[in-house]
Amino acid sequence: VLLKAQQNVMDFEGLGISVLAEVSYRSPEFARILKASENHLRELLKIPENYKVLFLQGGGTGQFSAVPLNLIALKEGRCADYLVTGTWSAKAALEAEKYGKVNIVHLDTYNSIHNANDWNLNSDASYVYYCANESMAGVEWDFIPDTKRTVLVCDMSSNFLSKSVDVSKFGVIFASTQSNIGCTGVTVVIVREDLLGFTLEECPAIFNYKIQVENNSVYNTPPCFSIYIMGLVLEWIKNSGGAEAMEELTVAKSKMIYDAIDESNGFYVCPVEVKCRSKTNILFQINKDKKDILEKKLFDKATNHKMILLKGHGSVGGIRVSLCNAVSVEDVQTLVALMKNFMELHELA
Amino acid sequence: VLLKAQQNVMDFEGLGISVLAEVSYRSPEFARILKASENHLRELLKIPENYKVLFLQGGGTGQFSAVPLNLIALKEGRCADYLVTGTWSAKAALEAEKYGKVNIVHLDTYNSIHNANDWNLNSDASYVYYCANESMAGVEWDFIPDTKRTVLVCDMSSNFLSKSVDVSKFGVIFASTQSNIGCTGVTVVIVREDLLGFTLEECPAIFNYKIQVENNSVYNTPPCFSIYIMGLVLEWIKNSGGAEAMEELTVAKSKMIYDAIDESNGFYVCPVEVKCRSKTNILFQINKDKKDILEKKLFDKATNHKMILLKGHGSVGGIRVSLCNAVSVEDVQTLVALMKNFMELHELA
Repeated sequence: VLLKAQQNVMDFEGLGISVLAEVSYRSPEFARILKASENHLRELLKIPENYKVLFLQGGGTGQFSAVPLNLIALKEGRCADYLVTGTWSAKAALEAEKYGKVNIVHLDTYNSIHNANDWNLNSDASYVYYCANESMAGVEWDFIPDTKRTVLVCDMSSNFLSKSVDVSKFGVIFASTQSNIGCTGVTVVIVREDLLGFTLEECPAIFNYKIQVENNSVYNTPPCFSIYIMGLVLEWIKNSGGAEAMEELTVAKSKMIYDAIDESNGFYVCPVEVKCRSKTNILFQINKDKKDILEKKLFDKATNHKMILLKGHGSVGGIRVSLCNAVSVEDVQTLVALMKNFMELHELA
Repeated sequence: VLLKAQQNVMDFEGLGISVLAEVSYRSPEFARILKASENHLRELLKIPENYKVLFLQGGGTGQFSAVPLNLIALKEGRCADYLVTGTWSAKAALEAEKYGKVNIVHLDTYNSIHNANDWNLNSDASYVYYCANESMAGVEWDFIPDTKRTVLVCDMSSNFLSKSVDVSKFGVIFASTQSNIGCTGVTVVIVREDLLGFTLEECPAIFNYKIQVENNSVYNTPPCFSIYIMGLVLEWIKNSGGAEAMEELTVAKSKMIYDAIDESNGFYVCPVEVKCRSKTNILFQINKDKKDILEKKLFDKATNHKMILLKGHGSVGGIRVSLCNAVSVEDVQTLVALMKNFMELHELA
């Protein structure tokens, strides 16, 4: 469905061309596109009025720098707590060390999330940071961390709008848009007003939240076409029942695959603890001799079906299924049938 | 013609969609697009082998930060010389002050470029910075500054590929792509190899030239679709005779308009000194009573003709013509006829 929405853009000549050719990003047409995208987002996530919405460049990796640059000076000690549950939050913590003291509160083998009682939260921290869904590790938070009043920052890049979320619990939410709400090139930042104005002097102007808020996200030339596409996808989500409907679908789709894994009598295994298994990025391995060869075979088979992207990721291994909003229940059914079929063939062999 | 090229993209279903939907930026298809874009650019500008080509995010404004972050520590004193000839170089100088000592070597009322003898170049400067074409001021360098062996950095955002250029004279060239080689969202950086590795510690990872070189511009998710469009535009420039042909056209087109101004007996005036008049951004005013009303009238007339974008810019006033590669000689002829017609009407009135 997403692909269709995008195909329609291609035919949407009058407007599409003008946004792509980008004659003037200060035109009233573009201002309208920008405002419409913001309004869709505000409606979908019920964003409170004291939060600003920014559309920036640089992706999640850019925000790994922008977050400490804008927030680490919220308190004098310039330190921050990082809950590390996978490669993305680890990368964010490493980047933050350039700008202040980083306290790693949670660290594990990237397959579970500890109980909050084990965390050694620092009451002087300017903020607590976590990644809602670790796409490579296949680990997703099923609760919002309780930070005892410290500002909470969340990277929602890989599960943004795959479920509803209570924005008021956060100081900053950011998400690069390629996974669920558009093509690459635009990063959504939702920031609580009272957190603006603490930016470090060495912050590049394009990453300065306050400057971008004051300039309505167009301090520099924005990625117009990507913002246009994002607006269309947001509209499609709205017309499809909103974040709540996406959540229902995501839960149902992921359950089908996890069931296939759990009911395989150990042929397939998921290395992630049940309660924090990701609903958008499902990781599994084949628990057999010649595991690598079998996984490659299954991978190739799925690719040939062109139904879904399956890939073992270098740093983790095994097979990974990405269930963004664009993947349909039928796609998942086909994959599950293929997995069962493959298992039967190789169990008997 | 550019618009047509872009329209073709819209119909280029198979590939277009896959790049836009952005299933995997680490796919061989995308690697091919990236490589092709780089090769086109290398061929068009005859880029020597000891230069690296990067496709980044954040636009020219992002590079205002990235340049000092990567280069100001080239020498111990951490200072840089800035040749300020308009609002863009002024903005760049202001941003650089965050990271070291900035020496403004050239400053004027933004309508001329001093003789090099007047410059007080600092032999300890890590680099000398200038903006090849000030799009708002309508001022363009007609020579490459002689820096006495100090590394030269140039912002070519608004006249990139409107002429040929000897890359070997520069340490770093950067250009955001919206003006001449694509849609918004991708920034070209051409950097000499030996300048890598002097990056300040506080540099955000996505702006670190060395990290991006080591990761072939995909350290973070790249703006795939914008890179794809850029590749097509570069191919079109190549097939149209290259940078040399673009230069010939740019010279011819701008001459037509400057001639119309200079032959108007003072009805139209260009505030910029003849030798540094921009060939891509032509600034002029109507030298009459009720100037503002007349300019608005001419502006509206041209807009109604939909031939060319004309706009008086807030900070400078008057009327501005932007002659990017996509503007044809016929478009310019229509504008010139309109200007003459308008003048005759209001001279007699």
